[in-house]
Amino acid sequence: MTSAPAVVRYDPATFEGLRFHTAAEAFRDGTDSPREYLERCLATIAEREPVVRAWVVRNEEGARQQADASTARWRRGRPLSPIDGLPIGIKDLLETRDMPTQMGCKAFAGNFPRRDNAAVWALRQAGAIVLGKTVTTELGGPEPSPTTNPFDPRRTPGGSSSGSGAAVGARMVPAAIATQTGGSLMRPASFNGVWGLKPTQGAINRGERQTASMTSHGVHAGSPEDMWLVAIAIASRAGGDPGRPALQGPAAPPPARMPGTVAVVETEAWDRLDPLSRRAFEQIVDQVEASGVRVLRRGGDAVVERFEHALVGVTDLGSGILAWEHSWAFRDIAADHPDGFSARATRFFFDTADRLGAAGYEESLRTRAAVTATYALLGPRVDAVLLPTSSGPAPVWAGDVPGEPPARWPTGDPGFNFPSSLLGAPSVNVPLMGVDGLPFGLQVMGQPGTDAHTVAIARWMGESLTPVIV
Amino acid sequence: MTSAPAVVRYDPATFEGLRFHTAAEAFRDGTDSPREYLERCLATIAEREPVVRAWVVRNEEGARQQADASTARWRRGRPLSPIDGLPIGIKDLLETRDMPTQMGCKAFAGNFPRRDNAAVWALRQAGAIVLGKTVTTELGGPEPSPTTNPFDPRRTPGGSSSGSGAAVGARMVPAAIATQTGGSLMRPASFNGVWGLKPTQGAINRGERQTASMTSHGVHAGSPEDMWLVAIAIASRAGGDPGRPALQGPAAPPPARMPGTVAVVETEAWDRLDPLSRRAFEQIVDQVEASGVRVLRRGGDAVVERFEHALVGVTDLGSGILAWEHSWAFRDIAADHPDGFSARATRFFFDTADRLGAAGYEESLRTRAAVTATYALLGPRVDAVLLPTSSGPAPVWAGDVPGEPPARWPTGDPGFNFPSSLLGAPSVNVPLMGVDGLPFGLQVMGQPGTDAHTVAIARWMGESLTPVIV
Repeated sequence: MTSAPAVVRYDPATFEGLRFHTAAEAFRDGTDSPREYLERCLATIAEREPVVRAWVVRNEEGARQQADASTARWRRGRPLSPIDGLPIGIKDLLETRDMPTQMGCKAFAGNFPRRDNAAVWALRQAGAIVLGKTVTTELGGPEPSPTTNPFDPRRTPGGSSSGSGAAVGARMVPAAIATQTGGSLMRPASFNGVWGLKPTQGAINRGERQTASMTSHGVHAGSPEDMWLVAIAIASRAGGDPGRPALQGPAAPPPARMPGTVAVVETEAWDRLDPLSRRAFEQIVDQVEASGVRVLRRGGDAVVERFEHALVGVTDLGSGILAWEHSWAFRDIAADHPDGFSARATRFFFDTADRLGAAGYEESLRTRAAVTATYALLGPRVDAVLLPTSSGPAPVWAGDVPGEPPARWPTGDPGFNFPSSLLGAPSVNVPLMGVDGLPFGLQVMGQPGTDAHTVAIARWMGESLTPVIV
Repeated sequence: MTSAPAVVRYDPATFEGLRFHTAAEAFRDGTDSPREYLERCLATIAEREPVVRAWVVRNEEGARQQADASTARWRRGRPLSPIDGLPIGIKDLLETRDMPTQMGCKAFAGNFPRRDNAAVWALRQAGAIVLGKTVTTELGGPEPSPTTNPFDPRRTPGGSSSGSGAAVGARMVPAAIATQTGGSLMRPASFNGVWGLKPTQGAINRGERQTASMTSHGVHAGSPEDMWLVAIAIASRAGGDPGRPALQGPAAPPPARMPGTVAVVETEAWDRLDPLSRRAFEQIVDQVEASGVRVLRRGGDAVVERFEHALVGVTDLGSGILAWEHSWAFRDIAADHPDGFSARATRFFFDTADRLGAAGYEESLRTRAAVTATYALLGPRVDAVLLPTSSGPAPVWAGDVPGEPPARWPTGDPGFNFPSSLLGAPSVNVPLMGVDGLPFGLQVMGQPGTDAHTVAIARWMGESLTPVIV
């Protein structure tokens, strides 16, 4: 008999994500320091990384030097920002001047452009410690990564931000930069029990990564405070995407705020929500209603129903847009690296783009505009929309079935994530539920531009509701 | 006594740009071939390049191989597109898999990412011959390049697309890819006597170059037919920018079309138009009116006046937006390469961005939206707007004055170019005037999305009006 890998059961009531914002006082009075904080992170990494495999590369020597400089700034009472000294992981899709950017793709092995993405540049300006590059699935696509779920190594950490979610979920770092195209930030947040902010489209400057119309940089964090502090530190230094307003909101984390009205939106993925997870989600909704919040829902609200109808086909719609937008660049890479792409990526990107065609793409853009306009109808009616962040806790991925086409979503079903991507809407994952000993998240989605308000409502959910275990 | 460099006087009535589209018949019947066409281009380059200096690097061996393959396709009657075999120059801001991309900047010396920009990828798909990289000013900014004007080597070819304009003006190639931020495509078109298309913002996929909200890829060409064929060949293969519709229009060049009504818009640069050039432009306007076209103009039309008022400050507005959007990336480069930037670029980008600030940038975006909305008022009233493409023919650039701040616009005044950049509007340069033996262009500007219509009206101007010499 072989022994199964160790499984740490997740309890949302007792699990505490790693926090940084609470350390400032101790940094100032010298009872703690960014260098000691970093060393604790490195110790956790040494312990957990052999199984979790969240990192592609780390610059530990550089991090220690940065931590010492940060320590000196805090001692002088002159930190560069509230996140001065915060050790952070950077998803390996973003360029970093001191580490390679290999994008989880054989074609980019050794790629080392020696410059910083806008968000990385801004983090350094704010004094954050760029500790390493976290694992991404191949080019942010569907091919799974070697990273394992910190709560059960047989399971996926989700993707494409596999390493960012797992590193924060394993308490290796208090925060990591993730990105979302379909569900690449929110689904890993759900699966790894971390806070996640996918901001309004364009609210955080993507730097060199502007080549898709519905991708966002965002944050995984062990606490909502650090999540906000990291996001606003970037946006206040590097701004939003060119032509877009930057993330709007206060320099300090927006305090919890009870909503007056919310809508529950079931989406086309509702039927794929597993029964236990559905029960957990409904218990959360019951608690919200019992707190005095008005809850709008299908059957009782025509606008919610209109929006749900508009969302039909959202996964195919979003997948098509992404595949088309990436196809020229990926075909160019594939021409140079015939073995550089997984069969799954080829199928996803090239076949989907071929089926869509130029006219189909432009029709998809118009459809997206129509869905977004329909979503705006909810703006004056509700403070936020509630959905599950995923169709359940992290699934086991046992590999493709020989002789059958490659599975479409080995890192999990993105059906609950495509709405916020497509709508360009801010979305927050609240790690509030445990299903079968695994994390499962509540998603709070706002209207574009209302990121701070959406975070405030998500914090209210996190602080006022009782975590649910099923 | 030193002898002055040879000066070839420009006469718009007799000067013929190099054409490619007329060669198809001879390619088919074998009396000419893409290989022979290429060799003629290379002969012109050998003759003119020592003085003009339009190229950074050429891949002549690769070009000959591509030309032979194209020759075989034409002989079989199976060209990949109407521009199969067209030798083209690529502005050195765009990535090319087979040549370095050095961006006219010391910090990028030797930069060689070995992948293609979207437009370059599409050109290769269409069978065009990517002959070489044409000189850009430093990072597309204000610092002048070593390229000289083909009609007078003491004068600037304009910038930032210095090499693209000069290579087409010197008849080295029938077309080149240029880009515009402020006036980087249109001004060189005017100064080099070439046709130029600056399309609707987003209508030609910029590939990796998406990091500014008001830049466009476009085309310099010796004829309006090749200009259109190149643009549509790219857009029909690589599409528009992510999230934007691609260039709209027919596969064949839109035939000339007489407008019913046009507006003459003077802009804030009108007072800087030199008297001879103003006389030439007014003679063109008189001819348009004499042809039976209704001409709206300040003094007689309130909407034109409203638009002119909206354009006040357009150069500073556009410059500020561009400086802010580039500042994080350029600061990152400057940190690594303390001597990598000219003093002029530092002043332009960093000082301007510092003065503007984040709030100033977002106000600039709102102002731009207001100017654009005001421009839309002209849409139902006129078929196109006419302006000079530059404030005169190419000036002599004799260098900065010692002890004084670096000159702001050594490659020419962009005052007539910022409107189309800021509005995201299509603009076409018609090489229709000669001033003092130098080219000076007429600019035809349309509403966003009306590129084909705008080209058709520009062709009417080119075919129906008598070239003016002053």
